[in-house]
Amino acid sequence: MGMIGGGPGAFIGAVHRSAAALDGLIVLVCGAFSSDPEKSKSMAGELDLPPERVYGSWEEMIRKEAAMPEEERMEIVSIVTPNHLHFGPAKMALESGFDVIMDKPMTFTLDEAKELKKVVEKTGRYLCLTHTYSGYPMIKEAKEQVRSGALGTIRKIFVTYPQGWLSQYLEATGYKQAEWRTDPSRSGAAGAMGDIGTHAFNLTEYVTGLQVTALCAQLNIVVEGRKLDDDGAVLLQYNNGATGVLMASQIMAGEENNLTIKVYGEKGGLEWSHADANSLLVKMLDAPYQTLRAGNGYLSELARHNTRTPWGHPEGFFEAFANHYRNFALCVEARKNGGQPKAEWLDFPTVDDGVRGMAFIENVIASGKSEKKWTAFEV
Amino acid sequence: MGMIGGGPGAFIGAVHRSAAALDGLIVLVCGAFSSDPEKSKSMAGELDLPPERVYGSWEEMIRKEAAMPEEERMEIVSIVTPNHLHFGPAKMALESGFDVIMDKPMTFTLDEAKELKKVVEKTGRYLCLTHTYSGYPMIKEAKEQVRSGALGTIRKIFVTYPQGWLSQYLEATGYKQAEWRTDPSRSGAAGAMGDIGTHAFNLTEYVTGLQVTALCAQLNIVVEGRKLDDDGAVLLQYNNGATGVLMASQIMAGEENNLTIKVYGEKGGLEWSHADANSLLVKMLDAPYQTLRAGNGYLSELARHNTRTPWGHPEGFFEAFANHYRNFALCVEARKNGGQPKAEWLDFPTVDDGVRGMAFIENVIASGKSEKKWTAFEV
Amino acid sequence: MGMIGGGPGAFIGAVHRSAAALDGLIVLVCGAFSSDPEKSKSMAGELDLPPERVYGSWEEMIRKEAAMPEEERMEIVSIVTPNHLHFGPAKMALESGFDVIMDKPMTFTLDEAKELKKVVEKTGRYLCLTHTYSGYPMIKEAKEQVRSGALGTIRKIFVTYPQGWLSQYLEATGYKQAEWRTDPSRSGAAGAMGDIGTHAFNLTEYVTGLQVTALCAQLNIVVEGRKLDDDGAVLLQYNNGATGVLMASQIMAGEENNLTIKVYGEKGGLEWSHADANSLLVKMLDAPYQTLRAGNGYLSELARHNTRTPWGHPEGFFEAFANHYRNFALCVEARKNGGQPKAEWLDFPTVDDGVRGMAFIENVIASGKSEKKWTAFEV
Amino acid sequence: MGMIGGGPGAFIGAVHRSAAALDGLIVLVCGAFSSDPEKSKSMAGELDLPPERVYGSWEEMIRKEAAMPEEERMEIVSIVTPNHLHFGPAKMALESGFDVIMDKPMTFTLDEAKELKKVVEKTGRYLCLTHTYSGYPMIKEAKEQVRSGALGTIRKIFVTYPQGWLSQYLEATGYKQAEWRTDPSRSGAAGAMGDIGTHAFNLTEYVTGLQVTALCAQLNIVVEGRKLDDDGAVLLQYNNGATGVLMASQIMAGEENNLTIKVYGEKGGLEWSHADANSLLVKMLDAPYQTLRAGNGYLSELARHNTRTPWGHPEGFFEAFANHYRNFALCVEARKNGGQPKAEWLDFPTVDDGVRGMAFIENVIASGKSEKKWTAFEV
Repeated sequence: MGMIGGGPGAFIGAVHRSAAALDGLIVLVCGAFSSDPEKSKSMAGELDLPPERVYGSWEEMIRKEAAMPEEERMEIVSIVTPNHLHFGPAKMALESGFDVIMDKPMTFTLDEAKELKKVVEKTGRYLCLTHTYSGYPMIKEAKEQVRSGALGTIRKIFVTYPQGWLSQYLEATGYKQAEWRTDPSRSGAAGAMGDIGTHAFNLTEYVTGLQVTALCAQLNIVVEGRKLDDDGAVLLQYNNGATGVLMASQIMAGEENNLTIKVYGEKGGLEWSHADANSLLVKMLDAPYQTLRAGNGYLSELARHNTRTPWGHPEGFFEAFANHYRNFALCVEARKNGGQPKAEWLDFPTVDDGVRGMAFIENVIASGKSEKKWTAFEV
Repeated sequence: MGMIGGGPGAFIGAVHRSAAALDGLIVLVCGAFSSDPEKSKSMAGELDLPPERVYGSWEEMIRKEAAMPEEERMEIVSIVTPNHLHFGPAKMALESGFDVIMDKPMTFTLDEAKELKKVVEKTGRYLCLTHTYSGYPMIKEAKEQVRSGALGTIRKIFVTYPQGWLSQYLEATGYKQAEWRTDPSRSGAAGAMGDIGTHAFNLTEYVTGLQVTALCAQLNIVVEGRKLDDDGAVLLQYNNGATGVLMASQIMAGEENNLTIKVYGEKGGLEWSHADANSLLVKMLDAPYQTLRAGNGYLSELARHNTRTPWGHPEGFFEAFANHYRNFALCVEARKNGGQPKAEWLDFPTVDDGVRGMAFIENVIASGKSEKKWTAFEV
Repeated sequence: MGMIGGGPGAFIGAVHRSAAALDGLIVLVCGAFSSDPEKSKSMAGELDLPPERVYGSWEEMIRKEAAMPEEERMEIVSIVTPNHLHFGPAKMALESGFDVIMDKPMTFTLDEAKELKKVVEKTGRYLCLTHTYSGYPMIKEAKEQVRSGALGTIRKIFVTYPQGWLSQYLEATGYKQAEWRTDPSRSGAAGAMGDIGTHAFNLTEYVTGLQVTALCAQLNIVVEGRKLDDDGAVLLQYNNGATGVLMASQIMAGEENNLTIKVYGEKGGLEWSHADANSLLVKMLDAPYQTLRAGNGYLSELARHNTRTPWGHPEGFFEAFANHYRNFALCVEARKNGGQPKAEWLDFPTVDDGVRGMAFIENVIASGKSEKKWTAFEV
Repeated sequence: MGMIGGGPGAFIGAVHRSAAALDGLIVLVCGAFSSDPEKSKSMAGELDLPPERVYGSWEEMIRKEAAMPEEERMEIVSIVTPNHLHFGPAKMALESGFDVIMDKPMTFTLDEAKELKKVVEKTGRYLCLTHTYSGYPMIKEAKEQVRSGALGTIRKIFVTYPQGWLSQYLEATGYKQAEWRTDPSRSGAAGAMGDIGTHAFNLTEYVTGLQVTALCAQLNIVVEGRKLDDDGAVLLQYNNGATGVLMASQIMAGEENNLTIKVYGEKGGLEWSHADANSLLVKMLDAPYQTLRAGNGYLSELARHNTRTPWGHPEGFFEAFANHYRNFALCVEARKNGGQPKAEWLDFPTVDDGVRGMAFIENVIASGKSEKKWTAFEV
């Protein structure tokens, strides 16, 4: 694996590296860790990489690695840069024959996203978008519970993603993460809705298999001086007639990162929250509540495939991330060996999720500015 | 106390009687328990009342009791009928010199509510509206936490009231409660929004001291054949610039009755849910979470006044209800004795809450039908 | 009902009165509220009782009430005095023809308890001992789950009763409750084991239907200067071969009153805690956890009989207490009417529980002093 | 790193490998994965190791690796065999100049443990014993809370380790893990007490800094036919006068793996459970409960050092394990570089913990057989 981004002090780059390493399937062999060549090169020691494979730019990395003999060069590219630096590396990597795993949102604009989809289709490479939360085993189980029909027709979907870390005007304090996340030139058209709203949006479509058809958004800039939305609520309509509510906020002071989803059908509902990630609550009409727990034999094959430990041994954020890496790697390996990937390996977020995520951002921004209640969800 | 409504099998009537009895301050002395005189009279035995004081109609009860000597007649009137039978008895009771405690929503229409407010003002009687949830001690504490400024300026309010009992078309099965709740001629213009949405709405204004100024509603009739909304979500604007989301649904299959409120200010947030009613979660920025528990000496005087047991001895629905009864009774008694009621006794929902609750119903219905995003909250 | 004890400021007396009033089945008609006649009489106003029926001593109350015409006199006696004043009033009341409901532990010594059992048998009156916790509906459900065989043969029982209120030497601060609870001349041979250990012990036998046959106790006086145990742990053997652990402590600083019981059989386990009293957790081998919730139709008849509200409307300490009062009252009434009490009415703690509770105290004290590991449980 | 044990299908071996890989500090370079040379060699492909460094026996591995040039040979040895195969490899590895990280319990007997301690002292190598639970950041925080004096003098310690996986006679079903865990010739003198009781015991001493001085055990073989204890409870005395209770059971049907510890001092208590590993509950007398959450800036330096993610991003079992690996590796590296390890790196379980763990096993077995209440804790 070659990594683009993830230089000194970058949180998400380190997460990607640990996630990739966890299962022993992927080895980091090269990287272009920063747009500053000095900073990039400084990572060689820390990561125990040969200096000649720590590149000064992502273009250089892709070009030189592609020129190496097949058995020596990197096989996959991991992109962990800020949003405005997603599209270029992804396109070049795919067109150079590499499979790509990358952070979300997929691109800077919806147009880029649609362009990238064409590149994926043309090159036939895999693209995995690391929407972490669909990597959790109990989210996999939630999807299977809905798919099996256990809840009946889905009627109501509720997702909330509360954070409090931007409750104050941190972008002026030298806090890098806060700086780029709130900067339209690096983050894109949306703030909270782009950073965490897209996770929440993706999760509802992943778990239910439904698609949003219209939305009504109230977006707020709560902290004075901020340039992008830091809080918002969105009413949703889905393609089977179900309705929903999505909340995403980074100014809910005191909240950590407790993404929660609840889905209700005719016969019952289910509930998952990040703070208790190894449980899935299932509430059927007129029956005791059930708490399904990761690692048990009664879970679906999809859930079990995405767990490494037996019941009662909690897995967390790294492992959810690692599930995407592992499934992606298994698919890449299967193709290399001329085999067919299993259905559960293919269950990672793809370029299609990326396109819908970017459409969500553009539609939610449009709705936020509109005086009309409903905005059709256009892709 | 004389009771209007609460005949054979009525759930809420029995709750009112137990709540009134709990503290030994109020004695049930008469009643008109049903619009069917036979059914009303049948309650005499069960309730150990003299048959001559179980009346065939509420008009008869008010008229005859008012004609009795002051030391013998009932002192207060409790109204627990369906919504369309609230206004008449309340008006007559007030005008006959009785203080009134009654179930919510206060009236059938906003016009009736405004009329009733005039009657209260003219007669100088107390009117207590039993919004149960503001009777819970930890909700009192939540109010005090906001009032004290501990959270800073309030920015975000979130309230959800999920029930699942109307997930199916129960109104055709002979289930009385489902019948009248879903019948526009008895329940009023709103279904779920009237029955439980008003509780949620009232709770946000009670806890924060703020008032809704505009709203954007999506109301749904999810169960086929139903005549009133059984599910809905509402975006809210408050008079200090804060925004909010309110959800109320009776088709969230599997949910019981878990009203939850979260309020976020600049410095921190708080959270209360009915399923853990004796706790209040306070989350301050960059500090450990705090769980405040009913019955402790560190709570506000308001919270402590509304608790009967020491820490760790859970109080519940009856006790929250009984708090309104007790505070109302203490005020009535104070006036009788020529004294001043204490501030914490006056902290029960009044006719003003009733007027705003009815305005909520009418505004939320109007917004639900509107194609415009925002509907101004008019009273 | 006539009450003995429960004078000015007494916590448990007020709880008994509210619990008795809740269902409208029992009316307080007289009392001897304090051993100090002045204090006793001072309660007449507060409780709205005729002064001539507020007596200066319990002997006077029982004697005079017994002499009244049957239709005028009290029907039942409630005893809420400190432990050393349980036996005398109970014996006289029973022998005077009254049914008795009383606080625990039943007597001051095991000998008194055995003597009282004879009195009950001779007089044929009902005696109800208010072990609050077996009044909770989900404890009733736990009992039925075990009885039904759902868990298989019971193997392991675990009960813990943590409190922190005696973490410091409060008995010197004028705190009445702390004074008598830690005073051997009023509380008896045991401190924490008598006050709360007996609750825990009773709960294990109630839920499982088993009986303790041997025990091994470690009793501690943790706070310097205290005269009775304030902390202890007990290993238990039951008559079917199951084993158990009981902990009761009043020096677990920070703990409120969270009695918790867990019972494990061959096929699964169950768990109840006072802090979430309306839930019962059932964990079957290789199956999702189940949370049974009070007020649901899927519960046993015994649980449903002991609930007043539908699902999601929490009941608490008063209601658990009130269940004992109601069941006791229904039995007394049935006998009066010449009928048979229903099985679920008879499900309150009796003189037999009282005898075993006193035996627990004496055996646990003996074991605490013994150097031998096991002490046979003798009654 | 070279690994001994962890062959095909071994759960804990895979955990060790993932934990070692997570932080990119340790690379697996060789192994003797099974006592069956065929099985050992079969791991080469799966683990991407050169076949010549996958050895047929641990003796061969240690001998040959020790003979390699320093810059090529393995630096540390990880031992993940069943208990009877701990001592031999550990001793030889240490004496061959390697640092050792190994699974618990440390040895088969206390004598072996004491012998190993001498080897460690003589060779000056590091030995890390993977008591997973002391690797959790919130357990580190618990230790710091006690050490800081925040709770006052510790009075009461309570630890329970409930599992249900051996509720039935699985050792006859071909379940390997069940077979060796219940086999005295591979597991040692104790069953549940050795496998999980030692974890619980170690955790109390780690968190409190106290040492057990006497114990009173009730050990049970609950499942018919089993040869080792599968359930037990132990009363404890600590060297500052505190007392405690330890429970460890593998027949609590329905339980997963929810190790829980509670510690009470004069001023307050704390509580941690594995099922909510990223939280630490602190309960101070007369104050709101506090929930400390992993990843926050208000935590001790020790807790923060052992966390990789910011608040709200759950870490779990692998990360706790990885903390021991990382700290051990940092110490080894520091010595290699001639530097001093930091205090927080040295905070992993050592040979001294291993000796006390083996003493716990021998003392608890002795006490279980004794008719005397107390058995002195002898090492």
